[in-house]
Amino acid sequence: MNSRLAEIRRFFRGIDGFLVTDMNNVRYLTGFTGSSGFLLMTRKGNILVTDFRYREQAEKEVRGLNIAIQKGSRLGTLSNLAKRHNIKKLGFETSVSYEFFNGLSRKDFLLKPLANIVERLRSVKNAEEIKLITMAVRRAESAFLEVLPYIKKGVRENKIARFFEERLKKKGCSRLPFDIIVASGSNSSLPHAKPSDKKLKSGDLVLVDWGGEAGGYFSDMTRTLLIKGTDVGKKKEIYETVLRANKKAVSTISPGVDSKEIDNSARYVIKKAGYGEFFGHGTGHGVGIQVHELPSIAMSKKGLIKENMVFTVEPGIYVPGLGGVRIEDMVVCKRKAVLLTRLSRELKVI
Amino acid sequence: MNSRLAEIRRFFRGIDGFLVTDMNNVRYLTGFTGSSGFLLMTRKGNILVTDFRYREQAEKEVRGLNIAIQKGSRLGTLSNLAKRHNIKKLGFETSVSYEFFNGLSRKDFLLKPLANIVERLRSVKNAEEIKLITMAVRRAESAFLEVLPYIKKGVRENKIARFFEERLKKKGCSRLPFDIIVASGSNSSLPHAKPSDKKLKSGDLVLVDWGGEAGGYFSDMTRTLLIKGTDVGKKKEIYETVLRANKKAVSTISPGVDSKEIDNSARYVIKKAGYGEFFGHGTGHGVGIQVHELPSIAMSKKGLIKENMVFTVEPGIYVPGLGGVRIEDMVVCKRKAVLLTRLSRELKVI
Repeated sequence: MNSRLAEIRRFFRGIDGFLVTDMNNVRYLTGFTGSSGFLLMTRKGNILVTDFRYREQAEKEVRGLNIAIQKGSRLGTLSNLAKRHNIKKLGFETSVSYEFFNGLSRKDFLLKPLANIVERLRSVKNAEEIKLITMAVRRAESAFLEVLPYIKKGVRENKIARFFEERLKKKGCSRLPFDIIVASGSNSSLPHAKPSDKKLKSGDLVLVDWGGEAGGYFSDMTRTLLIKGTDVGKKKEIYETVLRANKKAVSTISPGVDSKEIDNSARYVIKKAGYGEFFGHGTGHGVGIQVHELPSIAMSKKGLIKENMVFTVEPGIYVPGLGGVRIEDMVVCKRKAVLLTRLSRELKVI
Repeated sequence: MNSRLAEIRRFFRGIDGFLVTDMNNVRYLTGFTGSSGFLLMTRKGNILVTDFRYREQAEKEVRGLNIAIQKGSRLGTLSNLAKRHNIKKLGFETSVSYEFFNGLSRKDFLLKPLANIVERLRSVKNAEEIKLITMAVRRAESAFLEVLPYIKKGVRENKIARFFEERLKKKGCSRLPFDIIVASGSNSSLPHAKPSDKKLKSGDLVLVDWGGEAGGYFSDMTRTLLIKGTDVGKKKEIYETVLRANKKAVSTISPGVDSKEIDNSARYVIKKAGYGEFFGHGTGHGVGIQVHELPSIAMSKKGLIKENMVFTVEPGIYVPGLGGVRIEDMVVCKRKAVLLTRLSRELKVI
């Protein structure tokens, strides 16, 4: 049994089995990368269940676990296995759908909801994972530097995004964590704008949010540029405020600090500068095999930061009409934060 | 109120409100394309709730609905709205997570689970939707024809996939429904293989599964090619069997037929040819704003086919070691099936 499965087994209190249905969690625990199936951990052993389509793939990818092929419904297959393994009380992940839960609750075992067990384990990365995430950061940065000369007045947002995506793929990213955001002028004040056929104009803020991939791990970063123009004083002021907030948050990070405090430290800088109402999202999120995972660095979320957690620091200010700035870096928490992102955070005027 | 919302309102029996949490359903009913929020339908009106990040976008995209910005948690915001609108019994979508359901069940209203209400409405397309899906098919086909000359002996699967993706983007597909599959030789017997750096070889079956997009609607199709080689008799036989199964299934389609019968008709052809055990997936699925939606054309799923449903027909035979064949077309059900896919289904040997 691998060490991740052994770690999860520590939560076997009052349950005979644990049903892992989140496919990212299944992949993390077993190595199986298919999109359909589940993992059933029992006192005696672990069974990866998938359907016919993934039989060969599961046999290739999964070591040291039994593999079973689903016959009929997912629920029926699970129910049979539970009987065979004498499961009286089954732990399940609270991320399952109500529909599936409702089916489970009609079966012949008791249920115990377990929240974020695997997600919390995933939030602390090992050396191999940090290496892959760092590689995903490097690929993303290197693609960005190649795209940079094309970001200029008169070019369309979606043309930049398309070219950017091609560069990321060429660097070896087999998939992207999300659609690249290239948002200029008033679009940049929409924190999740889609690239349009709008052309970059003088004086525009241009917000670019993108991520890379390596070995199944993601990266996520944002830079905001300014196109040369008149009357850009306010935009520069916003930029400098966000930059200070970013640096402040990074300096707050260490093992044992509450994630709330990190959020607070960035938020305080922005509030003090008078832009509090224009920073409506959290300060950061974990990144790994999902681009949004634990820890959550936000106002309303408590939780201690641990060594080797990897997450983003991404304060932003979005003023409708004027534009938005976000500066997003990735860090790994060692004794202090170590920046994984190496791209300059200083304002680039082009 | 738009006609889709009006249609949903017909399900207001014994409930005062309906909570739509699936973001594809929210988009279908309101036009909002953000990735976070929910729709609350009440007796008096409909409220789209989203968070700060999507405020401007919601105001641009949504007409004729109230827009509210989430304050604090999703559950807290919902609870306040429910109080204000005097909701005593709330319908909710069974696709919500157990976690969210558990939070809901502690609030001050009764709950009624409603399965697939919006999904069933979505499964029948209007003229505009069929136009967009057809455009998504055309873009996908036109990209395929440009990629075809590059599919030959000695080229790597992942190189073809990358080039294919670029062509699809160039055709105007703003995103792809799934990662393109290019699977050759023994890989082709994995129905959901990922493109590897394997080179196409003489005698290989090459399975290519891809989709396009237009105006937010997807397409999905598969073609299987054969690289010239010796000892390919069995592969040709498999191909012809799948082709007969595909044609048989298409000919079975008409309004009022049970989707099970369509699946059966394809499965019967494959079974009779002795390959029954090598066809382990369903015969088809609906395609629209999601690439997998209702109707489900499968052995275990009953449900009548209606006019203007759009779905795939995609029988396959996968023989481990030897290779796999899938031929996937898209149809819209009129008085009979009308093929949306125009690419030839005959075996191409290259």
